This record gives sequence, C-alpha cells and structure tokens, in this order.
Amino acid sequence: MSDQITFYFDFSSPYGYIASERIEAMAERHDYRVSWRPILLGAIFKTTGARPLVDIPLIDAYTLYDLPRCARQYGVAYNHPNRFPIATVAACRGFYWLETTHPGLASAYVHAVLQAYFRDGLAIDDTTTLAAIAGKLGVSTEDFLVGVDNDATRARARAAIEEAIAQGVFGSPMLFAGKERFFGNDRLEQLDHWLATGGW
Amino acid sequence: MSDQITFYFDFSSPYGYIASERIEAMAERHDYRVSWRPILLGAIFKTTGARPLVDIPLIDAYTLYDLPRCARQYGVAYNHPNRFPIATVAACRGFYWLETTHPGLASAYVHAVLQAYFRDGLAIDDTTTLAAIAGKLGVSTEDFLVGVDNDATRARARAAIEEAIAQGVFGSPMLFAGKERFFGNDRLEQLDHWLATGGW
Repeated sequence: MSDQITFYFDFSSPYGYIASERIEAMAERHDYRVSWRPILLGAIFKTTGARPLVDIPLIDAYTLYDLPRCARQYGVAYNHPNRFPIATVAACRGFYWLETTHPGLASAYVHAVLQAYFRDGLAIDDTTTLAAIAGKLGVSTEDFLVGVDNDATRARARAAIEEAIAQGVFGSPMLFAGKERFFGNDRLEQLDHWLATGGW
Repeated sequence: MSDQITFYFDFSSPYGYIASERIEAMAERHDYRVSWRPILLGAIFKTTGARPLVDIPLIDAYTLYDLPRCARQYGVAYNHPNRFPIATVAACRGFYWLETTHPGLASAYVHAVLQAYFRDGLAIDDTTTLAAIAGKLGVSTEDFLVGVDNDATRARARAAIEEAIAQGVFGSPMLFAGKERFFGNDRLEQLDHWLATGGW
C-alpha cells in the first residue's frame, strides 16, 4: 500500500479546486495516493479569527484577478461562481457518507462537486443538486439524501474537522505528506520536490 | 530606458526579503529594472483590517515552518529574527531620504537593511543601526540621522504609502509590471513567465 497525501480542503475554496485538479497526477508520479479530507473553513475561522480572502478590502479584488491567472497557468477550467463563497456543509457531509458507503467513489465525488461549482456554476449548497451529482456517479439519490442528513454522517464530518484543527489546518488547501505540511496551491511545487527528494 | 518592476515591500516582511534576493536577477534577464517601494504594512492593515500572519493562531506556527523552507528552496540565507515583526518606519524613511539624496545607493540600502534583519539579526528598528548600515554604503551617518527625521522625508514616505494603497497594495511583497500585479514571493514564477511571454 502506497503512502498517502492528506488533502484538506473546503468545497468552496477556489485554490483548493485548482490544487485538486493537479494533485492526483503528482501523487501518482511518486507512488502516493490522495486521502481527501473536506473541511468547513467557517468552523476553522472561528478558531483563528481569519476571514475569507474575498471579505478583505483590496485582497478581494486581487484574488478575483489572481484566480483565473492561476487556473490558466495550470490549464484548469475555471469560471468564478456568481454566488461565492457558499455553504458547503451538505457537500462535506455527502463526502463523509459516501466515503463510508461507496469508498471507491469518494475521489470522483470530490472532483465532480468541485467542477460543478467552479467550472459549471451549479449550486452545490443545495442537497438536491449534490444528490444529482452523486446520482451520475451511480449512487442512489434517495440513499444520498437520507445519508447526508444522518447523525452518524454529521458526527464523522465533525470529527474530521476537529482532527483538521488538531493537525493545525487553518486554510484550504492544506496538504500533509508524512510530517511535512504545505499550505496553498502555490506550495505544490515544493510538495512535488519533497516527494521526489525529501528535500527543502 | 528599460521598463520597470515596482516592488512594494515592508522591511519587516520575510517573504519580501526572500523575493528581494530573487527579483533583480529576474528583472535583468528580461531587461527590466526594479523600483523599490518600501511601505508600512501597519498603515495598510488599518485599511484592510488584516493582521500579520504571525498574529493568527495556527498560521503563526506554519509560517515559521514555511519560511526557512522557502529560503532553502531559493538558496537565500535566512535566520528568523528574535524580535519579529518590528517597527520599520525609520528604515522606510531612511530609504526615501536616500532615494532623493543618493539615488544610486537605494538598491544597495534595501538589500543591506533586509539582510541585516533577516540574516544577521540586527535591530533595524533602531535609527543608529540604520545609520551604521548606510555608513557602510558610504553615506555620512550624521546626514542620515538628520535626513531620516526630516519633514520632507516623512512626507515622501507617507505619499509612497498612500500611493501603494491607491494601487491596491495590501501586503508584502507586491509587484507590478505594467498593469500586471503579483502578490507574494510565490508569484515570482508567474511574473517571470509574464515578463518572457506576456502570458497567463
């Protein structure tokens, strides 16, 4: 079994989306696998007192300029959503339900939901939309709707976020390989080098 | 006369220091010159409500981990200062005085002050220390001490910071090449590509 890269992200994080489109090819090159850990930045910001970039004057305008440029740099299709950021608690719970019930689909779900929001402009805060996305992956939409709103699912999502905070996760994306940690899409080059050499 | 890269930074910004050690070789490769614009992040944070990274729980620990790694990546000598961040108003005023009186030394002053703080651990919030640094560049330390504390110098520094805010500068380092803007040491790769091709 290969080593793992733990990929913490919020489904409403654009840099998380861009990194999600790059990480699997990188992991594969180094014989690592990706463990997806969706989190809720809202919960984490309560701990740190930080705010979404787009809520900070001057940074908001730059971010909207930088995002499409980064997407072009990495050849990732990107259309900034009209409603941004949005609540991702349902998308997050959907993941932790799916990870238990259909573990083989967890990765496909992550990509499908992120692409639905950041490429196709779908309302991924809407549980029905999420169920339709899961449906396309072959999951029963009824099962999904029940599973998302389930006490065990809520508890798993909550535990994942608590674990993230315990690991020092403060933003999205944040990646761990062994004890080495990397924050931001702009640290994937360092991660790549670290996976190859253990250096820097 | 070659085109210019405007390099906004705070003398207390570690990523600004790392970028300062990389930018001139990059500019030269593309026949650009660097125009240094020291600013005071404290004044800018009053506009944005942002805080220094090291004042934010969880982010502080990561930053102290990320900084030496980035310095290693780019081969920059880095020793995190014991007192950090510190007041840089004197260093900033010193620059704007020197830029007027000894324009040929402005770039050398920037490097000498940043290296004194981030490599050698000197107290660059102390005007006497700054005067000694300027002295090594051939400037009269008496002239420096008078020049730093001068109404015209204060006004120039203030105007530079107001200009930075008007340009949308919210952090350090922030670089402009024509209308294209880049925030952070981690965008220098994009800048390099943009200078070469105009792309991304």
